[in-house]
Amino acid sequence: MRNLREKSLLVHQQAKGKLYVDVKVPIENADDLSVVYSPGVAEPCKEIYVNPDLIYDYTMKGNFVAVVSNGSAVLGLGNIGASASMPVMEGKAALFKAFAGIDAVPLCINTDDPEQIIQTVKLLEPTFGGINLEDIAAPNCFLIEERLKQELSIPVFHDDQHGTAIVTAAGLINALKVVQKRLSECKVVINGAGAAGIAIAKLLLYMGVGDIILCDSKGAIYENRPYGMNKIKETLAKQTNRGRVQGTLKEVIQAADIFIGVSVAGALTPEMVRSMNDNAIVFALANPVPEIMPDEAKAAGAAIVATGRSDLPNQVNNVLAFPGIFKGALRVRASEINEEMKLAAVSAIAGLISPEELTNDYVIPNPFDKRVVAAVADAVARAAIRTGVARSRDTEKEQENVM
Amino acid sequence: MRNLREKSLLVHQQAKGKLYVDVKVPIENADDLSVVYSPGVAEPCKEIYVNPDLIYDYTMKGNFVAVVSNGSAVLGLGNIGASASMPVMEGKAALFKAFAGIDAVPLCINTDDPEQIIQTVKLLEPTFGGINLEDIAAPNCFLIEERLKQELSIPVFHDDQHGTAIVTAAGLINALKVVQKRLSECKVVINGAGAAGIAIAKLLLYMGVGDIILCDSKGAIYENRPYGMNKIKETLAKQTNRGRVQGTLKEVIQAADIFIGVSVAGALTPEMVRSMNDNAIVFALANPVPEIMPDEAKAAGAAIVATGRSDLPNQVNNVLAFPGIFKGALRVRASEINEEMKLAAVSAIAGLISPEELTNDYVIPNPFDKRVVAAVADAVARAAIRTGVARSRDTEKEQENVM
Repeated sequence: MRNLREKSLLVHQQAKGKLYVDVKVPIENADDLSVVYSPGVAEPCKEIYVNPDLIYDYTMKGNFVAVVSNGSAVLGLGNIGASASMPVMEGKAALFKAFAGIDAVPLCINTDDPEQIIQTVKLLEPTFGGINLEDIAAPNCFLIEERLKQELSIPVFHDDQHGTAIVTAAGLINALKVVQKRLSECKVVINGAGAAGIAIAKLLLYMGVGDIILCDSKGAIYENRPYGMNKIKETLAKQTNRGRVQGTLKEVIQAADIFIGVSVAGALTPEMVRSMNDNAIVFALANPVPEIMPDEAKAAGAAIVATGRSDLPNQVNNVLAFPGIFKGALRVRASEINEEMKLAAVSAIAGLISPEELTNDYVIPNPFDKRVVAAVADAVARAAIRTGVARSRDTEKEQENVM
Repeated sequence: MRNLREKSLLVHQQAKGKLYVDVKVPIENADDLSVVYSPGVAEPCKEIYVNPDLIYDYTMKGNFVAVVSNGSAVLGLGNIGASASMPVMEGKAALFKAFAGIDAVPLCINTDDPEQIIQTVKLLEPTFGGINLEDIAAPNCFLIEERLKQELSIPVFHDDQHGTAIVTAAGLINALKVVQKRLSECKVVINGAGAAGIAIAKLLLYMGVGDIILCDSKGAIYENRPYGMNKIKETLAKQTNRGRVQGTLKEVIQAADIFIGVSVAGALTPEMVRSMNDNAIVFALANPVPEIMPDEAKAAGAAIVATGRSDLPNQVNNVLAFPGIFKGALRVRASEINEEMKLAAVSAIAGLISPEELTNDYVIPNPFDKRVVAAVADAVARAAIRTGVARSRDTEKEQENVM
């Protein structure tokens, strides 16, 4: 049995990557050619020129997503650049297809300048039905997503932020049911103030969490902290840490109900877990080695532990979210993926496990649970229609289908 | 039987375009996921980070081509913009697959600013193995191609220029064999000084043509003509029209051996053909209606007529050139598509018709002739190796294969 490194290199090399492009109409003779290319292809062009919305009828755009990265924060590898990030972006595109039937391609952009990334994606808007931003370092990722959301009329979604936040929130909802606590009464400590940590904090705030203390490598973040701040941390500091608590993770985690780690291996010690409230919930999401291993966390008193690993229970895997989210958004031609749509995805994922099925080791569905994508897509499409961002001319029909 | 317009709209609408993306490795369980995505995907990333050339081994890049347009000169439709050009670019990408097995996607760029197009393509260089520029209006297309050729290390090819020029030249070589003339002794008149006309002129000059008179809508182009010039016309004027002839097409076509029209329907009259030399060759490539219909041209004395139409003999169809050219260039990882490679493609296309098979109505192979792509790809790969632009580590092996 080969180890994973050898197997991965072999699989990638034999197939020369993971994706291919193919034709879905016959091109076998001169007649076919005159339909799919000159002169027949002029007809859909003329139609789209008169009514731009028809691009969704006559081209692949409506099911075509760009997986966009500059390779500045790839997995745990850091800023390895656009070229070296290609395997990840091609893999992400492959997941779009395998899980949701969406045609996706990698677009690796060779720059660290956020304005150049914004400009490139803006100029390519005619081509794609949606934009999945991936592995772009904080804090630029916030600026890039915010600007693109404002300036494009197709969905833009930074998966490292929102995919992780949505699956985490779904797991938390179920975990809280198991331990019989309410989110509104919980004190949450998030360790890690990068893309994922910030997005989790924002989503939990939107969901009405009791209080959050967001920590970075310098300890708890509080308003006007005189060191290690940036614009997004300042914004979050105003909405979190109501007691303006200062100190290290070890100091501020005392009496917390929930720990969420999006940081580094070993960041959470058994001693810290022991200092948390009873029935503590620990989401140790550092990859591949979590902030604390589940057995250690449980021995120290944690009731429920989730990680990012597929070989452990309760895996927080973004593949539970992004395929269905894009599928739902594309289906109704949503102009954006808004907070209501994200929340709909959270509920859909959590709701796949019935109260009777819930256990401490089963608060998050399996990534290969065949029901997930359809449930998320339906919920997201409904939320898009409800919030008025769906643009499909079939929205009424769609509404009947998904309601 | 539906007419072409209805059939084309129906085919496009039923399939929602012409292309799809799919996976070429299994993604069915957690083990697969750990190979094609996290954590296994980190391994090819790390390899590429250390040795950038390995991107060709571990990703789709080496067989991945972007069909780039801003929709500024689409078919005969003019500047219809990026969105309305999507059907053509998706169709072109489909031809790459159907004819050469190349994975290609449309990239429609929403700008008329050549610098923005250059910048966008440059930033995306890590992703693609080659760039096919398409339907970008002259004279910006010349600037864009020239800059990208200088600044990228992957092949860049503006098909409207070179694809047309290569197939035209191949047809001319065979036509001259039939009428027993030499290119070096021929006077050629090219009507149309856009992308195709300029590229045909350049290629014929490179091939040692006797003389060329290039005409635009204002008549013959000559050095220092005081009206209707641009940079590229000025350059060409220095190399063509040795007699500095002035006048309309009607005036300058007298005693020409070859007429090449890349202009508009009806631009060539029977009277003009009658004024040409004996055994005149007429390439009337305006689409869908040629500068003159073959029966009219022949009645006026033309020996050989070619058009752009699939329902007439001797069709100049770019699909004879670009699929094999990219296939050959990608196979040896050529850093560019140089003049020798283009000339190799010309010879390969012309050479598919043996001297015994040549007739007045068969100087250009059929676009669906199965031998074309392989012959062109082999010739282009050989030329790339010979001229030192092949970068494949397998070049020696390749050399044995293709020699």
